[in-house]
Amino acid sequence: MPTPVIIDCDPGHDDVFALWLAAGNPEVSLLGVTTVAGNGELEHTTTNARIALTVAGVEGVPVAAGADGPLRRKLTPATWIHGDNALGGPVLPAPAVPLDGRTATELTADLLEASAEPVTLIPTGPLTNVALFLEQRPGLRGRIREIIWMGGSTGRGNVGAYAEFNAWSDPEAADLVFRSGLPVTMVGLNISHQALVTEDVIASIAAIGNETSAFGVELLRFFCAAYEVSQGMPDGPLHDPITVAIAIDRAVAEVRRCHVDVETRGEFTAGATAVDLRDMLGKEHNADVAISLDVPRFWRLVRDAVAALR
Amino acid sequence: MPTPVIIDCDPGHDDVFALWLAAGNPEVSLLGVTTVAGNGELEHTTTNARIALTVAGVEGVPVAAGADGPLRRKLTPATWIHGDNALGGPVLPAPAVPLDGRTATELTADLLEASAEPVTLIPTGPLTNVALFLEQRPGLRGRIREIIWMGGSTGRGNVGAYAEFNAWSDPEAADLVFRSGLPVTMVGLNISHQALVTEDVIASIAAIGNETSAFGVELLRFFCAAYEVSQGMPDGPLHDPITVAIAIDRAVAEVRRCHVDVETRGEFTAGATAVDLRDMLGKEHNADVAISLDVPRFWRLVRDAVAALR
Amino acid sequence: MPTPVIIDCDPGHDDVFALWLAAGNPEVSLLGVTTVAGNGELEHTTTNARIALTVAGVEGVPVAAGADGPLRRKLTPATWIHGDNALGGPVLPAPAVPLDGRTATELTADLLEASAEPVTLIPTGPLTNVALFLEQRPGLRGRIREIIWMGGSTGRGNVGAYAEFNAWSDPEAADLVFRSGLPVTMVGLNISHQALVTEDVIASIAAIGNETSAFGVELLRFFCAAYEVSQGMPDGPLHDPITVAIAIDRAVAEVRRCHVDVETRGEFTAGATAVDLRDMLGKEHNADVAISLDVPRFWRLVRDAVAALR
Amino acid sequence: MPTPVIIDCDPGHDDVFALWLAAGNPEVSLLGVTTVAGNGELEHTTTNARIALTVAGVEGVPVAAGADGPLRRKLTPATWIHGDNALGGPVLPAPAVPLDGRTATELTADLLEASAEPVTLIPTGPLTNVALFLEQRPGLRGRIREIIWMGGSTGRGNVGAYAEFNAWSDPEAADLVFRSGLPVTMVGLNISHQALVTEDVIASIAAIGNETSAFGVELLRFFCAAYEVSQGMPDGPLHDPITVAIAIDRAVAEVRRCHVDVETRGEFTAGATAVDLRDMLGKEHNADVAISLDVPRFWRLVRDAVAALR
Repeated sequence: MPTPVIIDCDPGHDDVFALWLAAGNPEVSLLGVTTVAGNGELEHTTTNARIALTVAGVEGVPVAAGADGPLRRKLTPATWIHGDNALGGPVLPAPAVPLDGRTATELTADLLEASAEPVTLIPTGPLTNVALFLEQRPGLRGRIREIIWMGGSTGRGNVGAYAEFNAWSDPEAADLVFRSGLPVTMVGLNISHQALVTEDVIASIAAIGNETSAFGVELLRFFCAAYEVSQGMPDGPLHDPITVAIAIDRAVAEVRRCHVDVETRGEFTAGATAVDLRDMLGKEHNADVAISLDVPRFWRLVRDAVAALR
Repeated sequence: MPTPVIIDCDPGHDDVFALWLAAGNPEVSLLGVTTVAGNGELEHTTTNARIALTVAGVEGVPVAAGADGPLRRKLTPATWIHGDNALGGPVLPAPAVPLDGRTATELTADLLEASAEPVTLIPTGPLTNVALFLEQRPGLRGRIREIIWMGGSTGRGNVGAYAEFNAWSDPEAADLVFRSGLPVTMVGLNISHQALVTEDVIASIAAIGNETSAFGVELLRFFCAAYEVSQGMPDGPLHDPITVAIAIDRAVAEVRRCHVDVETRGEFTAGATAVDLRDMLGKEHNADVAISLDVPRFWRLVRDAVAALR
Repeated sequence: MPTPVIIDCDPGHDDVFALWLAAGNPEVSLLGVTTVAGNGELEHTTTNARIALTVAGVEGVPVAAGADGPLRRKLTPATWIHGDNALGGPVLPAPAVPLDGRTATELTADLLEASAEPVTLIPTGPLTNVALFLEQRPGLRGRIREIIWMGGSTGRGNVGAYAEFNAWSDPEAADLVFRSGLPVTMVGLNISHQALVTEDVIASIAAIGNETSAFGVELLRFFCAAYEVSQGMPDGPLHDPITVAIAIDRAVAEVRRCHVDVETRGEFTAGATAVDLRDMLGKEHNADVAISLDVPRFWRLVRDAVAALR
Repeated sequence: MPTPVIIDCDPGHDDVFALWLAAGNPEVSLLGVTTVAGNGELEHTTTNARIALTVAGVEGVPVAAGADGPLRRKLTPATWIHGDNALGGPVLPAPAVPLDGRTATELTADLLEASAEPVTLIPTGPLTNVALFLEQRPGLRGRIREIIWMGGSTGRGNVGAYAEFNAWSDPEAADLVFRSGLPVTMVGLNISHQALVTEDVIASIAAIGNETSAFGVELLRFFCAAYEVSQGMPDGPLHDPITVAIAIDRAVAEVRRCHVDVETRGEFTAGATAVDLRDMLGKEHNADVAISLDVPRFWRLVRDAVAALR
């Protein structure tokens, strides 16, 4: 039986591939999608999530909008990577997938209550929605199987020396999730920078030849160009779908169980995920931190999912 | 003419080699030594500095004691690496070199005023003494040629995810020094972890065959054993003498000019040196950050200096 | 010749009286009004500023909108005092006064450049606009005569033990203004709680008998009721117009010259204005802190101004 | 049956009166005294505690030394109030009372285990020892009846705008105690500034005419002179014995049950006790905060105790 998952995202180029991987792979069942401000304003990320499903011909998966900004900080959309509408590159079609009238919290609650078994939450943006859900619906924590999050880093960051964008956007939310006691897997820059969109990767996706792959190639070309300009990386790292890949098959990534603290107070390091890889501090383990990726297997999962869509 | 230098240190095994390198190399002239609490209590680090000079037969270099703890934080000596007396391993002789009656600030001021040309300060411990000197004797800033400091990291730390011991011990002092406007070179873990004390290194120092080398080998064996136990590194990194090596010959290390912020507020990241390697933040450059080491040349300098001593 | 002033406000019941005092008193000349998010969302505070001028029949004073939220923190409008539209109580008329197309920064810059003499800035909300102006137009600092701000406290706060609403809303902006070197007068809770809207005050304003006073009485009744419910103060303190009263006549308040630090890092005290009333810390004085109010003279100024309007 | 108490102190002029009140009043039984660095270095505060008991002829009460500095911050003794030896004024006799060989934690543990009923802890200095005890001997928490602490403030502070000396000395320890869940009574500056040492008070103590009162008058004269110089208060506030007075008779002070947060992160407000007097924040109550003092009754208790001693 496929694993039920909910994706909480801020599309965002790589989020789109996370949605497609969940929609196109038979090992997971995409119950719903919630959106959050992050890579773009909420308005954009919500429209983009609906477009991602529309392009791929996915039907019957509800999409609900969540928080329009971090818990306590100001929103800074990542326009330098994703463009002004958070999905730069292709001409965007009007979304055929409707917007669900519920809030992200309400939709998540309804899906958790209706599911026969505990559900995996897959946040690929700032953890604002997840933090709000845990605070507002504590009674449903037992219905969450685990949380697999794209965010953080065991080493350097991408918006400061030590902070990764999703963690930096809402450190207080991330702090709350890592302290929640729920099973958390962190997919940080240290592993996502192993999922580089090389020319070979683009060529192999182009070769699929369906509508989804064509749209996807346009996304990837814009994404890699933006990464080259702003980060000096011509092959951009496709962060988000690694989370879904782990939900499908934990063997795709090697993880280390350890203690993670999220810095909320730092002047120059807010959002840094202090990962105690060697148990230097002797604190209780609170996360599985993804360390290394089975790169060929990861791309195979992505390609197979895209090929299974429209 | 040799470059005049003052070493401000907290010996500590690797500090001893920094002292020996400065004393034994003809390109630098060791004007004086000041001590600070760090690897050990001030009492120990001061005695150890005097012992280091005694063992090597160095005479006429004044040794003065400085701060017995960080500007605002509590001292936590690194006993897990250096032992309770900060110089674990060999049986320590009584120091023949006397303790100068002046404070570190007074000795430094006197040496700066007496020197014909500006003097290079080489701190190899927490920056407490240097910060106090800059605050108490602002009129002598012009007599400082540059500051070459062992501390910080461009990546992970050694007392927390992102903090290196010297920076973590006194972040406020480091912050003050990096904001001082003086030329600062940072020799961090990223480069010091290239100066590993392998069995070959130990063998080559043992082969020198003088008193200094014999004492040094005992230090290195203790140091490497401690590193293996506490950090999982059987070949300990000999951090401190890299600073002196750079004062002797800047070509021994490649540096990058960039902006460094020192985190003083973080809960989990205090002491992190946020190094903006790619000018992401657009801030004014305030440091030369050492990136890579000419490893064979470094060890050659160390060996030649030890061989030139007693 | 009247003193030229610009009011930067977030109306807000008491802001309206500040606007009226400036518009109705002959000793000051109201050059323009800029608005900021604070007591309410920017949309509301901007409309309310235009309504305040409309009700009082003020024409020819440009109103421009500024920041829609604090520099780095999330906006929390003071709905518990001012209602959802930031001006609870009366039925609000449509504003006849137009919205200027310039930003707050642009309008302020234009007014400063056009003024024959330096201009007094009177911010009665969070200091976001002022901070942005100082950062974006440093060349015009010399055109600012002084800044008279309603905010802060020398004692307890009103949104936490030690934080006043305006300072707490944007501590980073307040910090920047107090460090700016410009002449700053702080009108904090310690003095504004001397300007209590008693039944006598309301009766004396009602007795004026014009349109402005009638609207004003409705504002004051709502305001006092809200203060009674949320703060246990039946006679609400009319904070904001004290600033204008000081611009009109410094003798209306006794001030003390001292050093003020704005806390930006505290977990429970962010926005606290640490006022060193007795020079305990020996820091350079950077503000005039208003200590006591000539209460009858203050209300006389307010009443005379309202009476001079429509 | 008298209430068993342990006083944890840093004498300090007012601490001496706390010790004498506990030793001379029949309603409490002074089981032991522990000392901490605060008003002075540990060496001085420990000697001074022994002197205070010696002068008053108290025998059989063990005195043990505790922490020589705050948990994480640097010690700054209050020499401006208490002089270099923390007990300026009288010529100090050699202490006849011996120093117990146990640490403060060990002595406290032994006394708690031996007491038939739960014991009241009365800390009159920084909370370092209490915090360490709670961390090191969690199994004995049930043996603590309550903690009555002199420290904090509901309003302004005495070492900064908002910080009181004991709280500011070790904010992390205070934070730990207020979060401990144990019954805590806070005797802050707001109430201690009601216990002013007027000329009448000094005269009435002098009139007792025993050795203790003579020594006490010398202490009070020095203390008041120091307060006049450093704080502009000619009648110094005798903070510490209020705690013991409350242990003797809760009716001596009016308290309010509320929530207290201790600021540990602030740059200008570290150590501020954020007391939510009006339940603005809706947090769970964690302390009884002393608000007003029955001043005549308080001084009567002090005088009667001194009269009962030697």
